[in-house]
Amino acid sequence: MKIDILTLFPDMFAPLEHSIVGKAQEKGLLEINYHNFRENAEKARHVDDEPYGGGQGMLLRAQPIFDTFDKLQVTKPRVILLDPAGRTFDQAYAEELAQEEELVFICGHYEGYDERIKTLVTDEISLGDFVLTGGELAAMTIVDATVRLIPEVLGKEASHKDDSFSSGLLEFPQYTRPAEFRGMKVPDVLLSGHHVNIRRWRMEQSLRKTLERRPDLLENYDFTDEERQILEEIKAEGK
Amino acid sequence: MKIDILTLFPDMFAPLEHSIVGKAQEKGLLEINYHNFRENAEKARHVDDEPYGGGQGMLLRAQPIFDTFDKLQVTKPRVILLDPAGRTFDQAYAEELAQEEELVFICGHYEGYDERIKTLVTDEISLGDFVLTGGELAAMTIVDATVRLIPEVLGKEASHKDDSFSSGLLEFPQYTRPAEFRGMKVPDVLLSGHHVNIRRWRMEQSLRKTLERRPDLLENYDFTDEERQILEEIKAEGK
Repeated sequence: MKIDILTLFPDMFAPLEHSIVGKAQEKGLLEINYHNFRENAEKARHVDDEPYGGGQGMLLRAQPIFDTFDKLQVTKPRVILLDPAGRTFDQAYAEELAQEEELVFICGHYEGYDERIKTLVTDEISLGDFVLTGGELAAMTIVDATVRLIPEVLGKEASHKDDSFSSGLLEFPQYTRPAEFRGMKVPDVLLSGHHVNIRRWRMEQSLRKTLERRPDLLENYDFTDEERQILEEIKAEGK
Repeated sequence: MKIDILTLFPDMFAPLEHSIVGKAQEKGLLEINYHNFRENAEKARHVDDEPYGGGQGMLLRAQPIFDTFDKLQVTKPRVILLDPAGRTFDQAYAEELAQEEELVFICGHYEGYDERIKTLVTDEISLGDFVLTGGELAAMTIVDATVRLIPEVLGKEASHKDDSFSSGLLEFPQYTRPAEFRGMKVPDVLLSGHHVNIRRWRMEQSLRKTLERRPDLLENYDFTDEERQILEEIKAEGK
């Protein structure tokens, strides 16, 4: 995968090198290029200007972003603009992006940008219903969530299949050594060595947590017979 | 505000210095401290271990995090654990956190952590329905969204009141110079200098975009009479 990121703050992306993204680059599975569009601005690196019609804040101008975009070596990329009004990012979206050969991210600024920039864009993405100083943290988050789904990026092929949202349920509680810490004990079943019981306890805990916190996830979940039976038992408890 | 961040990767937080967070620190409105809990791990900096009951991945151990937490100089902090099963972060949550004196973030790792760590925690927060390599990017995002709401952090006191979600509607399109760029023109009304028309056009664009993309936001929106009338006109168009 090849990722091009248009940003006024390329230095902000340093953390990605620490994450799975750095490993993907080392393995030759990923190339990321940063493009500071200030360098392509006409008129003394002039990247923003006042809004037509009045109002507070400075808007990113179209010209530096278009001219930077024209210089990218891409064929048919997904072009992502980070915007609070975009489609909400989720695991299914990450899986979709992980299939692509080329991604381009355009990082805006919280004060806004010239609407004509959107004519370059295939995907307006929102990280959630909150406002950030700029698009950089959102872009990094999306890159991290996406890159780890590219085959062979994670060490063990299977290891993202157990994630929350990948299975469709929230994860069961986990414990590691010691068996007692500051008076708090690990549930006996996990120390029992009885694998059938452990498996059933975990399934029940996952279903219980999902039912309590995110019942919406159960609506589209593809239950096994065993899971459906356990869920019925949990629901019956409250009656 | 004082923020303490428990993480295995303190270097990842460098981008915050470029953002509004750096400015808030310069203004003396914010203090951020990073604590690498590996330094408090007993037994040769041993931070993770295998799960009881079997399974893939390594879990963060409770001891290094508890011992790091004990050394924090805090009185009654909000203690935030980043977890996909947590309450979804949004602008209202950011406004709530911006009122606090002390925030502590515990950054997990995607493979999981010992459940007993949660006994330290007041808030389990999810950034959204997706899986990240670790909690660091999520913590940075929450810090950025929260810190910019602290009074006096943004230059102009009013400048975050126009944000999407702060008003309750999505933002109208904005344009800056030139009036024509690559054949694309700025809407005439914005060049007219007629402020009443500009205001009304923007209101209509905001309502139209919110109706198309996020009708859920309109359900709890506190309409003015004028806004309600414009919305009715937009809805009547489609009939």
